[in-house]
Amino acid sequence: MNPIEETARRAKDAALRLAGLSTQVKNRALQGMADLLRGRRADILAANQQDVQRATELVARGALSKPLLDRLKLSEDKVLGMAQGVESVAQLPDPVGQTLSTMELDDGLELRQVSCPIGVIGAIFESRPDAVPQIASLCWKSGNTVILKGGTEAQESNRVLVNLLRRAVAAVAPDLMDAVQMIETREDVRALLQLEDHVDLFVPRGSNDFVRYIQDNTRVPVLGHADGICHAYVDQHADVAQAVAVCYDAKVQYPAVCNAIETVLVHRQIAPTFLPLLARAYEQAGVEMRGCVAARALLPNIVPATDVDWDTEYLDLVVSIRLVDDLETAIAHVNRHGSGHTDTIVTEDRQAAERFLDGVDAATVMHNASTRFADGFRFGKGAEIGISTNKTHARGPVGLEGLVLYKYRLSGRGHVVADYVGPQAKPFTHRCLPT
Amino acid sequence: MNPIEETARRAKDAALRLAGLSTQVKNRALQGMADLLRGRRADILAANQQDVQRATELVARGALSKPLLDRLKLSEDKVLGMAQGVESVAQLPDPVGQTLSTMELDDGLELRQVSCPIGVIGAIFESRPDAVPQIASLCWKSGNTVILKGGTEAQESNRVLVNLLRRAVAAVAPDLMDAVQMIETREDVRALLQLEDHVDLFVPRGSNDFVRYIQDNTRVPVLGHADGICHAYVDQHADVAQAVAVCYDAKVQYPAVCNAIETVLVHRQIAPTFLPLLARAYEQAGVEMRGCVAARALLPNIVPATDVDWDTEYLDLVVSIRLVDDLETAIAHVNRHGSGHTDTIVTEDRQAAERFLDGVDAATVMHNASTRFADGFRFGKGAEIGISTNKTHARGPVGLEGLVLYKYRLSGRGHVVADYVGPQAKPFTHRCLPT
Repeated sequence: MNPIEETARRAKDAALRLAGLSTQVKNRALQGMADLLRGRRADILAANQQDVQRATELVARGALSKPLLDRLKLSEDKVLGMAQGVESVAQLPDPVGQTLSTMELDDGLELRQVSCPIGVIGAIFESRPDAVPQIASLCWKSGNTVILKGGTEAQESNRVLVNLLRRAVAAVAPDLMDAVQMIETREDVRALLQLEDHVDLFVPRGSNDFVRYIQDNTRVPVLGHADGICHAYVDQHADVAQAVAVCYDAKVQYPAVCNAIETVLVHRQIAPTFLPLLARAYEQAGVEMRGCVAARALLPNIVPATDVDWDTEYLDLVVSIRLVDDLETAIAHVNRHGSGHTDTIVTEDRQAAERFLDGVDAATVMHNASTRFADGFRFGKGAEIGISTNKTHARGPVGLEGLVLYKYRLSGRGHVVADYVGPQAKPFTHRCLPT
Repeated sequence: MNPIEETARRAKDAALRLAGLSTQVKNRALQGMADLLRGRRADILAANQQDVQRATELVARGALSKPLLDRLKLSEDKVLGMAQGVESVAQLPDPVGQTLSTMELDDGLELRQVSCPIGVIGAIFESRPDAVPQIASLCWKSGNTVILKGGTEAQESNRVLVNLLRRAVAAVAPDLMDAVQMIETREDVRALLQLEDHVDLFVPRGSNDFVRYIQDNTRVPVLGHADGICHAYVDQHADVAQAVAVCYDAKVQYPAVCNAIETVLVHRQIAPTFLPLLARAYEQAGVEMRGCVAARALLPNIVPATDVDWDTEYLDLVVSIRLVDDLETAIAHVNRHGSGHTDTIVTEDRQAAERFLDGVDAATVMHNASTRFADGFRFGKGAEIGISTNKTHARGPVGLEGLVLYKYRLSGRGHVVADYVGPQAKPFTHRCLPT
């Protein structure tokens, strides 16, 4: 057995024990994690200093980007924030063991659908040490064991963090230390992707290419999204000021993230009034605009958009603009070019809004609101493990609820199927019971 | 565009329209399907006669099994049963458009989680014509379009059935005829498996090897199960008569199906009392028993079990028997060798039962009941699309509820994220509202 298989096997064993752990004990471990993060923050910062030093040299040589260095760097405040984050996960309701439905099949034969953990989660993420306690605490609370792989640049920080988390687990449940494990190299990841019998779900975060690499190289289900090609459609009955505000926020407020828009679709009727106002706002923010022929007839100074633009996630202050003849064309454009992440319509016409919300096939659809709201914290989930564009299982911003599944539990008194078939078959009662 | 891509594209287009169709119109189409099945039963039986004739020749040449011929053959009663089945799907509640949760994020900013169809479903199944209306009606009711591929032996029957279903759809929604389509060859299936941008979910039914072939050859999620290696564990505190009845039913009542047991695990303490009684019952039913060394010490006449036995789905009157020292060994055996389908414990000890139900990682776990109950109809779902051993999305016997997903719908009045960040950030209210 290679070392990664051994890691995965230990994670699987631990998962079967962790599944039955009480909420109380799980929360005690989370509190222990928070305490250790606070108490040992000097150790964390010292390790992080090593990572930062190495990364700074790489930035100087042009081998690493400055924003990555910013995300890598920890401060005392950031570490205290980590501890607080773990405590807030402790305060969330336990998603495991909830009875989702109950049905009497016959006298004394009762079926319950009960939420349960998924099992072993492979979490692969960027060089942000704060992701370690965040992901580990969400997995722990939902009864899943986790194999973490963070960006190489954060390796020293991650090692210290993972050790502290494991110590906190060991303090309350010594046989569950392997609920949190870490792997370190790309070869390790490649090996883990093959272990479909041991890993139940991968949660990758990072660049589009990276997520796509994970999706393309494993048969294990992957929770996440590669592209975030989001749209704002400004309907003919939009409130113009509101439309400008929403399109501005959705593009400018934080352009480098997945829920920022890439394309503004504009109804031809409202374009002459709306587009000049939007263009003025975008110009002031330094947004590069690329337009279709009709858009450029109204905004002659902007760049022509090519077919590639409609399928591009800029992650930058660039936006494409297309005029459409009607709502259906807008919906068709979104369904064809969007990535099923988040799309919004601005309109005062309730019927048009309903049609857009029904017709657009995306994890989150919005009406008169900025796509930037699509986020686990803003959606009130307390914490977010990622945003999923999957068409099965968890979709949209995913919190604890996306880390559990269910199992059916049937309890009888020796009931056998033979009594329920054939000419003398007993009937089922199939009576829904209060959960 | 090759013809299969064209089929899939039309299915996708139809899916986007079907998603918004009202319950009333959907049910009217289902009633139309039932009426046409009844009214045109002579056509169906004539086509089936052709299939049966060809299959009979194959059976005579030894190129086809007799049970397959039985499943292929339709009768007037069977066709009337199909119509009734479709009518019963019409009577099930619409799983689409249900509000699963509602939350106020802030004044005027309301988030709803609403159930919605998955999209395009590829259904590949054995040579049973009655599967066509069953699968098509479930997909239609749940707002999904379906591309059907039945066994080649049923081709004539399937063609007539699919045409009737499409006519019924056309009568209420002419632009939705492509919601039900059929493909006919293995090459078509191979091509469809590659169309990950067009197909959202595959639902394969058939032999283990066939399901595994589908799982191994597509990146689209697959709902179903390959193996059904199910266990009965007879605990030391079992009611012996009950244990015999459950183990007998779970093996003998219908051995060729996925939810029949393959292995009986027996606590060492109860084995001397229990095993001879079980063996007598199994012998009378012609069950071949294969035992571990300890089991054979009590039942000297049975065949030795080898390591392969614990991982084999016999689908026949064969059972393996292993003695275990304790509950934990039984749970570990099930988790190691089981396929996560259905496992049962027989015991009067409530605590042992709870531990087994918690500790066994399977879609359905049972206490004092036969594994044969794991079935959509018996579980009161009205209809079953399949049984899933997936660790994400739908699990266990899957009815309409497994054919829908959800989307988030956020409605505001021009809300922008910029107001909720920074030092002047407005707070979120995150107030759960009644759904």
